[in-house]
Amino acid sequence: MRKVTFGGAISLDHFIARKDHTYDWIISTREANEILKDYWETIDTIVMGRLTYEVAAAGGAGGGHAGIKTYVFSRTMKKPNTKRVIFLSEDAADFVRRIKKEAGKDICVMGGGLLARSLFEADLIDEIGFNIHPVLLGSGIPLFHEMSRQIDLDLKECRMLSKGCVYVTYNVKHR
Amino acid sequence: MRKVTFGGAISLDHFIARKDHTYDWIISTREANEILKDYWETIDTIVMGRLTYEVAAAGGAGGGHAGIKTYVFSRTMKKPNTKRVIFLSEDAADFVRRIKKEAGKDICVMGGGLLARSLFEADLIDEIGFNIHPVLLGSGIPLFHEMSRQIDLDLKECRMLSKGCVYVTYNVKHR
Repeated sequence: MRKVTFGGAISLDHFIARKDHTYDWIISTREANEILKDYWETIDTIVMGRLTYEVAAAGGAGGGHAGIKTYVFSRTMKKPNTKRVIFLSEDAADFVRRIKKEAGKDICVMGGGLLARSLFEADLIDEIGFNIHPVLLGSGIPLFHEMSRQIDLDLKECRMLSKGCVYVTYNVKHR
Repeated sequence: MRKVTFGGAISLDHFIARKDHTYDWIISTREANEILKDYWETIDTIVMGRLTYEVAAAGGAGGGHAGIKTYVFSRTMKKPNTKRVIFLSEDAADFVRRIKKEAGKDICVMGGGLLARSLFEADLIDEIGFNIHPVLLGSGIPLFHEMSRQIDLDLKECRMLSKGCVYVTYNVKHR
Protein backbone atom coordinates (compact mmCIF):
# COMPACT_ATOMS: atom_id res chain seq x y z
CA MET A 1 0.00 0.00 0.00
CA ARG A 2 1.26 3.49 -0.82
CA LYS A 3 2.30 5.66 2.12
CA VAL A 4 0.57 8.99 2.76
CA THR A 5 2.95 11.60 4.18
CA PHE A 6 2.43 15.07 5.60
CA GLY A 7 5.02 17.63 6.64
CA GLY A 8 7.21 20.55 5.76
CA ALA A 9 9.00 23.52 7.24
CA ILE A 10 7.35 24.99 10.33
CA SER A 11 8.06 27.59 12.97
CA LEU A 12 8.46 26.34 16.56
CA ASP A 13 4.93 27.63 17.21
CA HIS A 14 3.68 25.52 14.29
CA PHE A 15 2.89 27.99 11.59
CA ILE A 16 3.59 27.03 8.00
CA ALA A 17 3.42 30.63 6.76
CA ARG A 18 2.72 34.12 7.98
CA LYS A 19 -0.87 35.37 7.83
CA ASP A 20 -0.14 36.93 4.42
CA HIS A 21 1.11 33.48 3.24
CA THR A 22 4.77 34.56 3.08
CA TYR A 23 7.54 32.29 4.29
CA ASP A 24 10.61 34.53 4.18
CA TRP A 25 11.57 33.03 7.59
CA ILE A 26 12.33 29.63 6.06
CA ILE A 27 16.06 28.94 6.15
CA SER A 28 17.60 27.24 3.16
CA THR A 29 20.16 24.67 4.20
CA ARG A 30 22.02 22.09 2.17
CA GLU A 31 20.69 19.29 4.39
CA ALA A 32 17.07 20.42 4.07
CA ASN A 33 17.44 20.64 0.30
CA GLU A 34 18.84 17.09 0.25
CA ILE A 35 16.01 15.78 2.45
CA LEU A 36 13.50 17.43 0.12
CA LYS A 37 15.21 16.10 -3.00
CA ASP A 38 15.23 12.55 -1.61
CA TYR A 39 11.60 12.91 -0.50
CA TRP A 40 10.54 14.15 -3.92
CA GLU A 41 11.85 10.88 -5.42
CA THR A 42 9.48 8.85 -3.25
CA ILE A 43 6.22 10.47 -4.39
CA ASP A 44 4.21 10.64 -7.60
CA THR A 45 1.03 12.18 -6.18
CA ILE A 46 0.23 15.37 -4.28
CA VAL A 47 -3.11 16.13 -2.66
CA MET A 48 -3.96 19.65 -1.50
CA GLY A 49 -6.88 21.88 -0.64
CA ARG A 50 -8.05 24.91 -2.57
CA LEU A 51 -6.27 27.48 -0.38
CA THR A 52 -2.91 25.75 -0.77
CA TYR A 53 -3.47 25.53 -4.52
CA GLU A 54 -4.22 29.23 -4.74
CA VAL A 55 -1.02 30.08 -2.85
CA ALA A 56 0.97 27.67 -5.06
CA ALA A 57 -0.62 29.13 -8.20
CA ALA A 58 0.14 32.70 -7.08
CA GLY A 59 3.75 31.57 -6.63
CA GLY A 60 3.90 30.21 -10.19
CA ALA A 61 3.38 26.50 -9.38
CA GLY A 62 -0.25 26.31 -10.50
CA GLY A 63 0.73 24.09 -13.41
CA GLY A 64 1.92 21.29 -11.16
CA HIS A 65 5.16 19.32 -11.43
CA ALA A 66 6.62 16.99 -14.06
CA GLY A 67 6.04 13.32 -13.24
CA ILE A 68 3.59 14.13 -10.45
CA LYS A 69 -0.20 14.16 -10.41
CA THR A 70 -1.62 16.93 -8.22
CA TYR A 71 -5.18 16.58 -6.97
CA VAL A 72 -6.86 19.76 -5.70
CA PHE A 73 -9.94 19.32 -3.51
CA SER A 74 -12.58 22.01 -3.70
CA ARG A 75 -16.34 22.02 -3.67
CA THR A 76 -16.48 25.45 -5.31
CA MET A 77 -13.49 25.86 -7.62
CA LYS A 78 -14.20 25.35 -11.32
CA LYS A 79 -11.05 25.05 -13.36
CA PRO A 80 -10.23 22.81 -16.33
CA ASN A 81 -8.08 19.80 -15.48
CA THR A 82 -4.65 19.53 -17.06
CA LYS A 83 -2.38 16.52 -17.51
CA ARG A 84 -0.74 17.31 -14.16
CA VAL A 85 -3.44 19.06 -12.12
CA ILE A 86 -6.88 17.56 -11.48
CA PHE A 87 -9.65 19.36 -9.58
CA LEU A 88 -11.97 17.19 -7.52
CA SER A 89 -15.11 18.02 -5.60
CA GLU A 90 -15.46 14.60 -3.96
CA ASP A 91 -14.56 13.83 -0.37
CA ALA A 92 -10.77 13.90 0.03
CA ALA A 93 -10.67 11.02 2.53
CA ASP A 94 -12.68 8.75 0.23
CA PHE A 95 -10.41 9.59 -2.68
CA VAL A 96 -7.16 9.08 -0.75
CA ARG A 97 -8.43 5.81 0.76
CA ARG A 98 -9.05 4.57 -2.78
CA ILE A 99 -5.76 5.65 -4.40
CA LYS A 100 -3.70 4.34 -1.46
CA LYS A 101 -4.64 0.87 -2.66
CA GLU A 102 -3.55 1.52 -6.24
CA ALA A 103 -0.05 0.86 -7.52
CA GLY A 104 2.31 3.81 -7.39
CA LYS A 105 4.76 5.83 -5.38
CA ASP A 106 3.84 7.57 -2.13
CA ILE A 107 1.29 10.36 -1.70
CA CYS A 108 2.16 13.79 -0.30
CA VAL A 109 -0.40 15.86 1.63
CA MET A 110 0.69 19.40 0.93
CA GLY A 111 -0.07 22.66 2.66
CA GLY A 112 -2.04 23.80 5.65
CA GLY A 113 -3.63 21.57 8.20
CA LEU A 114 -7.29 21.54 7.12
CA LEU A 115 -6.93 18.78 4.55
CA ALA A 116 -4.43 16.99 6.80
CA ARG A 117 -6.93 17.07 9.65
CA SER A 118 -9.62 15.29 7.65
CA LEU A 119 -7.06 12.68 6.55
CA PHE A 120 -5.76 12.25 10.12
CA GLU A 121 -9.31 11.78 11.36
CA ALA A 122 -9.87 9.13 8.68
CA ASP A 123 -6.61 7.41 9.79
CA LEU A 124 -5.09 7.74 6.33
CA ILE A 125 -1.79 9.50 7.12
CA ASP A 126 1.15 7.15 7.66
CA GLU A 127 4.12 9.40 8.24
CA ILE A 128 4.77 12.99 9.23
CA GLY A 129 7.99 14.98 9.11
CA PHE A 130 8.86 18.54 10.03
CA ASN A 131 11.78 20.88 9.74
CA ILE A 132 11.26 22.93 12.91
CA HIS A 133 12.70 26.42 12.51
CA PRO A 134 14.15 28.42 15.44
CA VAL A 135 11.50 31.11 15.49
CA LEU A 136 8.15 31.87 17.11
CA LEU A 137 6.20 33.66 14.38
CA GLY A 138 3.46 34.65 16.83
CA SER A 139 0.71 34.27 14.23
CA GLY A 140 0.17 32.73 10.81
CA ILE A 141 -1.33 29.78 8.95
CA PRO A 142 -1.46 26.89 11.43
CA LEU A 143 -0.11 23.41 10.79
CA PHE A 144 -2.53 21.62 13.10
CA HIS A 145 -6.22 22.12 13.66
CA GLU A 146 -8.29 20.76 16.50
CA MET A 147 -9.10 17.09 16.01
CA SER A 148 -11.71 14.86 17.55
CA ARG A 149 -9.24 12.22 18.65
CA GLN A 150 -5.69 11.60 19.82
CA ILE A 151 -3.14 10.26 17.35
CA ASP A 152 -0.20 8.29 18.71
CA LEU A 153 3.14 8.50 16.98
CA ASP A 154 6.43 6.59 16.81
CA LEU A 155 9.50 8.80 16.59
CA LYS A 156 11.51 7.64 13.59
CA GLU A 157 14.26 10.21 13.31
CA CYS A 158 15.41 13.37 15.04
CA ARG A 159 18.46 15.37 14.03
CA MET A 160 19.84 18.85 14.17
CA LEU A 161 20.28 20.54 10.83
CA SER A 162 22.47 23.62 10.51
CA LYS A 163 21.28 27.12 11.44
CA GLY A 164 19.26 25.89 14.40
CA CYS A 165 16.74 23.76 12.51
CA VAL A 166 15.54 20.44 13.94
CA TYR A 167 14.29 17.66 11.66
CA VAL A 168 11.87 15.12 13.11
CA THR A 169 9.90 12.31 11.48
CA TYR A 170 7.24 10.06 12.98
CA ASN A 171 5.25 7.02 11.92
CA VAL A 172 1.57 7.32 12.71
CA LYS A 173 0.23 4.44 14.81
CA HIS A 174 -2.92 3.30 13.09
CA ARG A 175 -6.03 2.38 15.01
CA MET B 1 20.80 39.14 35.77
CA ARG B 2 18.61 36.15 36.58
CA LYS B 3 17.38 34.08 33.66
CA VAL B 4 13.67 33.66 33.00
CA THR B 5 12.83 30.23 31.58
CA PHE B 6 9.67 28.70 30.14
CA GLY B 7 8.98 25.14 29.12
CA GLY B 8 7.80 21.69 29.98
CA ALA B 9 6.33 18.54 28.52
CA ILE B 10 4.19 19.10 25.42
CA SER B 11 2.43 17.05 22.79
CA LEU B 12 3.70 17.40 19.21
CA ASP B 13 0.68 19.62 18.54
CA HIS B 14 1.73 21.84 21.46
CA PHE B 15 -0.77 21.11 24.15
CA ILE B 16 0.40 21.08 27.75
CA ALA B 17 -2.68 19.21 28.97
CA ARG B 18 -5.97 17.84 27.74
CA LYS B 19 -9.00 20.13 27.89
CA ASP B 20 -9.89 18.66 31.28
CA HIS B 21 -6.34 19.54 32.48
CA THR B 22 -5.22 15.91 32.64
CA TYR B 23 -1.78 14.87 31.44
CA ASP B 24 -1.91 11.08 31.57
CA TRP B 25 -0.13 11.10 28.16
CA ILE B 26 3.12 12.37 29.69
CA ILE B 27 5.77 9.66 29.62
CA SER B 28 8.05 9.33 32.61
CA THR B 29 11.62 8.66 31.55
CA ARG B 30 14.80 8.56 33.59
CA GLU B 31 16.38 11.21 31.38
CA ALA B 32 13.41 13.58 31.68
CA ASN B 33 13.44 13.16 35.45
CA GLU B 34 17.15 13.98 35.52
CA ILE B 35 16.66 17.05 33.32
CA LEU B 36 13.89 18.21 35.65
CA LYS B 37 15.94 17.55 38.75
CA ASP B 38 18.89 19.52 37.38
CA TYR B 39 16.57 22.31 36.26
CA TRP B 40 14.93 22.50 39.67
CA GLU B 41 18.38 23.24 41.18
CA THR B 42 18.73 26.35 39.01
CA ILE B 43 15.55 28.14 40.15
CA ASP B 44 14.30 29.71 43.35
CA THR B 45 11.25 31.49 41.93
CA ILE B 46 8.16 30.36 40.02
CA VAL B 47 5.66 32.69 38.38
CA MET B 48 2.27 31.44 37.23
CA GLY B 49 -1.21 32.63 36.34
CA ARG B 50 -4.36 31.91 38.26
CA LEU B 51 -5.49 29.00 36.07
CA THR B 52 -2.18 27.19 36.48
CA TYR B 53 -2.32 27.76 40.22
CA GLU B 54 -5.82 26.32 40.42
CA VAL B 55 -4.72 23.19 38.55
CA ALA B 56 -1.61 22.89 40.77
CA ALA B 57 -3.73 23.37 43.90
CA ALA B 58 -6.26 20.76 42.76
CA GLY B 59 -3.29 18.40 42.32
CA GLY B 60 -2.10 19.05 45.86
CA ALA B 61 0.69 21.54 45.09
CA GLY B 62 -1.18 24.66 46.20
CA GLY B 63 1.19 25.09 49.11
CA GLY B 64 4.20 25.65 46.88
CA HIS B 65 7.64 24.06 47.17
CA ALA B 66 10.38 24.19 49.80
CA GLY B 67 13.07 26.71 48.99
CA ILE B 68 11.06 28.29 46.19
CA LYS B 69 8.92 31.41 46.14
CA THR B 70 5.84 31.03 43.95
CA TYR B 71 4.12 34.17 42.70
CA VAL B 72 0.56 33.79 41.40
CA PHE B 73 -0.80 36.58 39.22
CA SER B 74 -4.50 37.26 39.39
CA ARG B 75 -6.60 40.39 39.35
CA THR B 76 -9.52 38.60 41.01
CA MET B 77 -8.20 35.88 43.32
CA LYS B 78 -8.20 36.75 46.99
CA LYS B 79 -6.18 34.32 49.06
CA PRO B 80 -3.87 34.89 52.01
CA ASN B 81 -0.16 34.80 51.18
CA THR B 82 1.97 32.11 52.77
CA LYS B 83 5.73 31.91 53.22
CA ARG B 84 5.99 30.08 49.89
CA VAL B 85 3.04 31.35 47.82
CA ILE B 86 2.35 35.04 47.19
CA PHE B 87 -0.69 36.32 45.30
CA LEU B 88 -0.17 39.46 43.23
CA SER B 89 -2.60 41.61 41.30
CA GLU B 90 0.04 43.81 39.68
CA ASP B 91 1.19 43.50 36.09
CA ALA B 92 3.26 40.31 35.70
CA ALA B 93 5.70 41.84 33.21
CA ASP B 94 6.46 44.80 35.50
CA PHE B 95 7.01 42.42 38.41
CA VAL B 96 9.26 40.01 36.49
CA ARG B 97 11.26 42.88 35.00
CA ARG B 98 11.95 44.08 38.53
CA ILE B 99 12.88 40.76 40.15
CA LYS B 100 15.13 39.79 37.21
CA LYS B 101 17.49 42.50 38.42
CA GLU B 102 17.53 41.24 41.99
CA ALA B 103 20.03 38.71 43.29
CA GLY B 104 18.90 35.09 43.17
CA LYS B 105 18.61 31.94 41.15
CA ASP B 106 16.65 31.73 37.90
CA ILE B 107 12.93 32.29 37.46
CA CYS B 108 10.55 29.65 36.06
CA VAL B 109 7.43 30.62 34.11
CA MET B 110 5.09 27.73 34.80
CA GLY B 111 1.97 26.57 33.08
CA GLY B 112 -0.07 27.58 30.07
CA GLY B 113 0.89 30.13 27.52
CA LEU B 114 -1.13 33.16 28.60
CA LEU B 115 1.36 34.40 31.19
CA ALA B 116 4.25 33.35 28.94
CA ARG B 117 2.77 35.37 26.08
CA SER B 118 2.76 38.59 28.08
CA LEU B 119 6.35 37.93 29.19
CA PHE B 120 7.44 37.07 25.62
CA GLU B 121 5.85 40.28 24.36
CA ALA B 122 7.72 42.23 27.05
CA ASP B 123 10.96 40.49 25.95
CA LEU B 124 11.54 39.05 29.42
CA ILE B 125 11.93 35.33 28.63
CA ASP B 126 15.53 34.20 28.11
CA GLU B 127 15.33 30.49 27.53
CA ILE B 128 12.70 27.94 26.52
CA GLY B 129 12.87 24.15 26.65
CA PHE B 130 10.40 21.43 25.73
CA ASN B 131 10.08 17.71 26.02
CA ILE B 132 8.10 16.99 22.85
CA HIS B 133 6.01 13.85 23.24
CA PRO B 134 5.16 11.52 20.33
CA VAL B 135 1.45 12.22 20.27
CA LEU B 136 -1.06 14.57 18.64
CA LEU B 137 -3.63 15.20 21.36
CA GLY B 138 -5.98 16.93 18.90
CA SER B 139 -7.20 19.42 21.49
CA GLY B 140 -6.22 20.73 24.91
CA ILE B 141 -4.62 23.62 26.77
CA PRO B 142 -2.31 25.35 24.30
CA LEU B 143 1.33 26.17 24.96
CA PHE B 144 1.47 29.17 22.63
CA HIS B 145 -1.00 31.95 22.06
CA GLU B 146 -1.03 34.43 19.22
CA MET B 147 1.58 37.14 19.72
CA SER B 148 1.96 40.57 18.17
CA ARG B 149 5.54 39.97 17.08
CA GLN B 150 8.03 37.37 15.93
CA ILE B 151 10.57 36.01 18.40
CA ASP B 152 13.84 34.69 17.04
CA LEU B 153 15.54 31.79 18.78
CA ASP B 154 18.94 30.14 18.96
CA LEU B 155 18.83 26.35 19.19
CA LYS B 156 20.92 25.34 22.18
CA GLU B 157 20.32 21.62 22.47
CA CYS B 158 18.35 18.89 20.74
CA ARG B 159 18.39 15.26 21.75
CA MET B 160 16.27 12.16 21.61
CA LEU B 161 15.12 10.86 24.94
CA SER B 162 13.79 7.34 25.27
CA LYS B 163 10.22 6.35 24.33
CA GLY B 164 10.11 8.72 21.38
CA CYS B 165 10.48 11.98 23.25
CA VAL B 166 12.56 14.83 21.84
CA TYR B 167 14.15 17.42 24.12
CA VAL B 168 14.91 20.86 22.67
CA THR B 169 16.13 24.07 24.30
CA TYR B 170 16.52 27.51 22.79
CA ASN B 171 17.92 30.87 23.85
CA VAL B 172 15.61 33.75 23.05
CA LYS B 173 17.27 36.47 20.95
CA HIS B 174 16.44 39.73 22.66
CA ARG B 175 15.48 42.81 20.71
